Amino acid sequence: MKERFSYVGKRLPAQDIKEKVTGAVQYTDDIKLPDMLFGKILRSPHPHARIEGIDTSNAEKLLGGGKYVVTASDAPAILVGGALRDMPLFAKDKVRYIGEPVAAVAARSPEQAIQALTNIKVEYKTLPAIFDPVEAMDKKAVLIHEHLGDYRGSQDVIRFGNVCSHTTIKRGDVEKGFREADHLFEDIFHTQSIIQGQIEPHAAIAVARSAGRVEVWTHTTGAFRIRQQLSEIFELPLHAVIVNPMTIGGSFGSKNFVRIEPYCIILSKKSGLPVKLVISREEEFTSFNPRHATTIEIKTGVKKDGSIIARKVRLTYDTGAYSDIGPVVSGEGAKQAAGPYNIPNVAVDSYCVYTNKMSAACCRAHGTPQPTFAFESQMDIIAGRLGMDPLELRLKNAVEEGYAGPGGDLYLGVGIKETLIKVSEKIDLKNRDGVNRGKGIAVGNWYSGVGASGAMMKLNEDGTVSLSIGAPDATGTDIMAAQVAAEELGVPLDRIVMTTKNTDHSPFDIISSGSRITHCIGQAVKNAAADLKAKLSEAAAPLLGTDPEHLEIDDGAIMVKKAPEKQIPLSQLAMSSHFSTHGPIIGSGTYFGKLSSFDREAVSGFVYDMGEDRTFVAQGAEVEVDTQTGNIRVVKLISANDIGFVVNPPNAENQVFGGVHQGLGFALSEEIKTEAGRVVNPNFRDYGILRAPDMPEVECNFIESGNGPGPYGAKGLGEQPNVPTAAAIANAVYDAIGVRIKSLPITPEKILSALKEKGEQER
Amino acid sequence: MKERFSYVGKRLPAQDIKEKVTGAVQYTDDIKLPDMLFGKILRSPHPHARIEGIDTSNAEKLLGGGKYVVTASDAPAILVGGALRDMPLFAKDKVRYIGEPVAAVAARSPEQAIQALTNIKVEYKTLPAIFDPVEAMDKKAVLIHEHLGDYRGSQDVIRFGNVCSHTTIKRGDVEKGFREADHLFEDIFHTQSIIQGQIEPHAAIAVARSAGRVEVWTHTTGAFRIRQQLSEIFELPLHAVIVNPMTIGGSFGSKNFVRIEPYCIILSKKSGLPVKLVISREEEFTSFNPRHATTIEIKTGVKKDGSIIARKVRLTYDTGAYSDIGPVVSGEGAKQAAGPYNIPNVAVDSYCVYTNKMSAACCRAHGTPQPTFAFESQMDIIAGRLGMDPLELRLKNAVEEGYAGPGGDLYLGVGIKETLIKVSEKIDLKNRDGVNRGKGIAVGNWYSGVGASGAMMKLNEDGTVSLSIGAPDATGTDIMAAQVAAEELGVPLDRIVMTTKNTDHSPFDIISSGSRITHCIGQAVKNAAADLKAKLSEAAAPLLGTDPEHLEIDDGAIMVKKAPEKQIPLSQLAMSSHFSTHGPIIGSGTYFGKLSSFDREAVSGFVYDMGEDRTFVAQGAEVEVDTQTGNIRVVKLISANDIGFVVNPPNAENQVFGGVHQGLGFALSEEIKTEAGRVVNPNFRDYGILRAPDMPEVECNFIESGNGPGPYGAKGLGEQPNVPTAAAIANAVYDAIGVRIKSLPITPEKILSALKEKGEQER
Repeated sequence: MKERFSYVGKRLPAQDIKEKVTGAVQYTDDIKLPDMLFGKILRSPHPHARIEGIDTSNAEKLLGGGKYVVTASDAPAILVGGALRDMPLFAKDKVRYIGEPVAAVAARSPEQAIQALTNIKVEYKTLPAIFDPVEAMDKKAVLIHEHLGDYRGSQDVIRFGNVCSHTTIKRGDVEKGFREADHLFEDIFHTQSIIQGQIEPHAAIAVARSAGRVEVWTHTTGAFRIRQQLSEIFELPLHAVIVNPMTIGGSFGSKNFVRIEPYCIILSKKSGLPVKLVISREEEFTSFNPRHATTIEIKTGVKKDGSIIARKVRLTYDTGAYSDIGPVVSGEGAKQAAGPYNIPNVAVDSYCVYTNKMSAACCRAHGTPQPTFAFESQMDIIAGRLGMDPLELRLKNAVEEGYAGPGGDLYLGVGIKETLIKVSEKIDLKNRDGVNRGKGIAVGNWYSGVGASGAMMKLNEDGTVSLSIGAPDATGTDIMAAQVAAEELGVPLDRIVMTTKNTDHSPFDIISSGSRITHCIGQAVKNAAADLKAKLSEAAAPLLGTDPEHLEIDDGAIMVKKAPEKQIPLSQLAMSSHFSTHGPIIGSGTYFGKLSSFDREAVSGFVYDMGEDRTFVAQGAEVEVDTQTGNIRVVKLISANDIGFVVNPPNAENQVFGGVHQGLGFALSEEIKTEAGRVVNPNFRDYGILRAPDMPEVECNFIESGNGPGPYGAKGLGEQPNVPTAAAIANAVYDAIGVRIKSLPITPEKILSALKEKGEQER
Repeated sequence: MKERFSYVGKRLPAQDIKEKVTGAVQYTDDIKLPDMLFGKILRSPHPHARIEGIDTSNAEKLLGGGKYVVTASDAPAILVGGALRDMPLFAKDKVRYIGEPVAAVAARSPEQAIQALTNIKVEYKTLPAIFDPVEAMDKKAVLIHEHLGDYRGSQDVIRFGNVCSHTTIKRGDVEKGFREADHLFEDIFHTQSIIQGQIEPHAAIAVARSAGRVEVWTHTTGAFRIRQQLSEIFELPLHAVIVNPMTIGGSFGSKNFVRIEPYCIILSKKSGLPVKLVISREEEFTSFNPRHATTIEIKTGVKKDGSIIARKVRLTYDTGAYSDIGPVVSGEGAKQAAGPYNIPNVAVDSYCVYTNKMSAACCRAHGTPQPTFAFESQMDIIAGRLGMDPLELRLKNAVEEGYAGPGGDLYLGVGIKETLIKVSEKIDLKNRDGVNRGKGIAVGNWYSGVGASGAMMKLNEDGTVSLSIGAPDATGTDIMAAQVAAEELGVPLDRIVMTTKNTDHSPFDIISSGSRITHCIGQAVKNAAADLKAKLSEAAAPLLGTDPEHLEIDDGAIMVKKAPEKQIPLSQLAMSSHFSTHGPIIGSGTYFGKLSSFDREAVSGFVYDMGEDRTFVAQGAEVEVDTQTGNIRVVKLISANDIGFVVNPPNAENQVFGGVHQGLGFALSEEIKTEAGRVVNPNFRDYGILRAPDMPEVECNFIESGNGPGPYGAKGLGEQPNVPTAAAIANAVYDAIGVRIKSLPITPEKILSALKEKGEQER
């Protein structure tokens, strides 16, 4: 199939790769504006406290005036949040976590700003704080948001006490299912809080211009979402906010919503000057929005033959002090909780719970790696008890194309069996090799996300084509878009020029997240190319003495299909069009994608629609465990990815390598550790991010069935590769040394402790 | 007709009028970039001299290094020019006018830059200089461009000696026509050199970025032309040059080509920093590109009944040291020279001649006010001799719709008679009032220019529509475009949002000149609106349960034509489209306009195609002459403008008021005076620009026949109102005191001298 393509499917580097490698690319922090000030945020030292007074006079004196210091009284009173609105921009009456913004300053230098912060005096009266979600759900627990009452959704109470949201999904009769089962399995799993770990910390610059306009430079994944949120926060018309999406040094969900942009604007409005805010790595660790820690209780009823007939899951997402996108994350957890298995009776309860910690948000496949760790670990427990092969058990229960999940949402593009078989073969699952060595597999899925994307193309005077899209180049977006454009237009890749991007002039794009870019931008570009091609043919037809439908474009020239010797180079067509015939030639295209339909009787609470099409990723791990030290060495990690069609192989591979890196960190080492609400390891070393030498051999397999909704049958691959990793590792560890770790990360301490316990039991 | 429109034809102010009035608008000189340097240009003090050496060492010392000083050796070797290429960026071997760039510096402040210039030592060996084009055409004259040989165009020699170009147009047999005439008229007219007088002097900023990219901020009328020229000069691909067109404080032709941008780039490339260059008013007067001074010899053969049967015109355009756009200007003079009269035998020779003065270029209706002054003055001379009414003579000979000029190019949209009759009535031509008072009329025409324009529209999430065009807002462009968009879409004007502009992302637009904007941008916007509307209807049809063709848009809602109660606000359609159905909605449109066809047997040399459609403007003046002082008081000036349709009345009126101001300055007071090639009056006061109290009552009449090629039958009106003014004044002066001034400006000195001569003759 690939042979017939000239650009898509080829190993092509990003167009700005040289600039990235040589450091010439400008990140947000590289931008300097004239007279720009440097902002810093004063953060709460208490996890829960009443603010009794703020004295900023000394800071104002140091900075040269009151206009360089802001607090809640300078900020819009609106409460913000990606799902619910419960967070003030600055804490006003009380603080709810260590790290919450209380005031901010703008100074001539970052150093002066830090000094100014030390000159602000805040009087606090501490309050009892809650750090454990189970404790928080107790009816007698102190309320973190006293003023938020219970809230009833369309069917059920979805917010009460410290429960921020409660999502349920039900199918069949789960208790009846359990009664009919031959075996019951009940397990409790824990996952830790991890950061997204993007290399570039948050940074933004804002200028509040005259006439109420605001211009922002920020490395967001969703410039149009930022525009919409800022327009709402500052009560400005959409067009009065211009967001310039900058080169982005990683997001993984951390840059999907307004984070620091409003502080820059508030400081710029008050000071009258541009303000830059760059977040330190420590602040990233203590005040930003990690992946939710969860507790997952999963009970499964299985027949003798291995068929699963009932599953009940209770998930608790620790969302921290403010809801942010937590309800959506925990709602997604509910949707995924029963796994990609055909189960007639399902009951899921997913709770998103406030605690006095920083707010959790989305992190690569929001809400999903946690339940996947749980159900894929339990699949091996079940297989073990039934004496079945883990692959066989999974294949027996695996969903088929067109399966409707417990919530009613379809599963399309189901490559679960192909990917599981592929990794089992590649890892040679049935054969063992060496002492304390083991192998494990697991599978996960995530959407080929939907949502609005637009693309515009203009033919330039020299025959090059400028391509405008609204999505930032977060994941190789630009080269993918250029490849699709070149392929569809029949124009050499180096004549496709990506234009600068901002919300003012770029076509709308909802966001670069949810593994939707290749799918949605790809299709929008394809549609724009079709439009441009039609117009090029119309313009060329009279010059070639034929009708537009008899023309095609190849290698930058437009020609008569049956007589390709009759042709005009596009550069010549452009010249004549711009300078003597009918004007510039412009094309446009848009795309949305197909949404799911839910069974509204089956679901309540937050169920966010991500579409119908999914990408499956199965992974197989081989590990070697040192039973003396508890150290786990991952020997090999094989990933099989049902991606439909690979538009850009290096980019796709990078998604797999990066996802596996993140999945292994989640499995083995990463953890935000807190003591009484305070993060005690706010740096990469203590936090435990994996370094290059820590990485095993990773093998990347693409299954290209062309079964996706994207161009050429492609599907998204942004989130999927980090979804099943932890379970594959946990299963391999069990296979190696016979201990089942149900709590992430699987540290040497936990291994040694489990080995000890196992030894005691066996003795 | 107008009643049926909601936005076009209405007195609507520009959307940024408040910002302009309060000074909040940013002009190029208001832009500051970090670490920006200030450039200054060292200019030749000699009109013609050999450069024997340049010593920049002291300047380099002062500025802190060699990278802050540039000369010819730092500049691309390419020769530049709008028609021919004969001008180096910096003089290398010799200088050809006082004011020619020899070197440039970039300094920390403008003051330091000026100081640095005084530290550059240039050794010159002076050469004989030529200032008079007649002298320059002498075969024995010293050659200003020794190395340029003769050049033969498709038919004839068009460049020889100091003649930069020679354009000829011939029809019939002019000598035979003269033999058949009852009366012959031979007159010689002179017009002076004037500046465009735009309030904002030239200013530009450039940054030469890594990876060979260049970004420029400049107040050009043609960002895409600047992009193309810079791309050529610096041998960069088109897309490596980004031109940001800034708010423009007037151009009138002065900002149509690269002027100072290359110097900013050369300085930025060498210094590694952004460089701003702002030209002083004195430099504007001494080194930029004024309207050509001309000598026009016109011989006309007339039958007894007043019909003109032959006209021979010889035009000499003094183009200064370099050709710039001179060949096109003098070629246009040739096209216009016989006037808008039906003459069977015509012979025109138009010469563009080098002299050792600054290069002339285009100035509002390039090449045309000069011959119009000549033939419209002669029309009154003829009428006088024949005892005919000047109106009657003109009406008798006036061209009709569809007339082919001597060069074969059609005259469409011919409102000559209507405008002449209108001004004659309004000025009450037949009646006189007071001593030394007189009345005169004249008519001129200019094109409703053609050329490529594009427009793109995107529906935003809130139902506003962002409109992108590539033309700067030089002449009320943005409000005109927004009015057309609002009208065509049925969306309230305040929901049309103009986007920022630059060459990277804006649709192509050839230039804001030639009176083409309302015509071409207007039509491009109309086409884009039609495209967007079709897509909106398609998106709304399923929601309204009907077919797209049954829908219309009014007041920001889309509705079923026959059941308007069935409707959806566009904001709602936008929301559903962006967030749940088929993606953003984008439309685009382009336009070119109809070119003329020339009779290639009839023309040789530079004949630039401006299209077929024309706008006629007739003006009537009443003057009172003080025969003691020679002072002319213009009592009243009436302008009748065959504009087709007025899209924005205040903007159209401003074109007339501004054009009359410029026309009156050309007629009465403005003149660049030189002595041995040196401008001796380089400031507005000595130059003689008219101030507000100098202006007469100006009455503006629009004839709206809907006979134009633009939207709603509109035509261009940028250049026309300054075309016939000088002749109307000269004719009124003759009518008042019986003296015929054939040389502009008509100063008191010339009046007194002519009165004296007349007195002597009569005595």
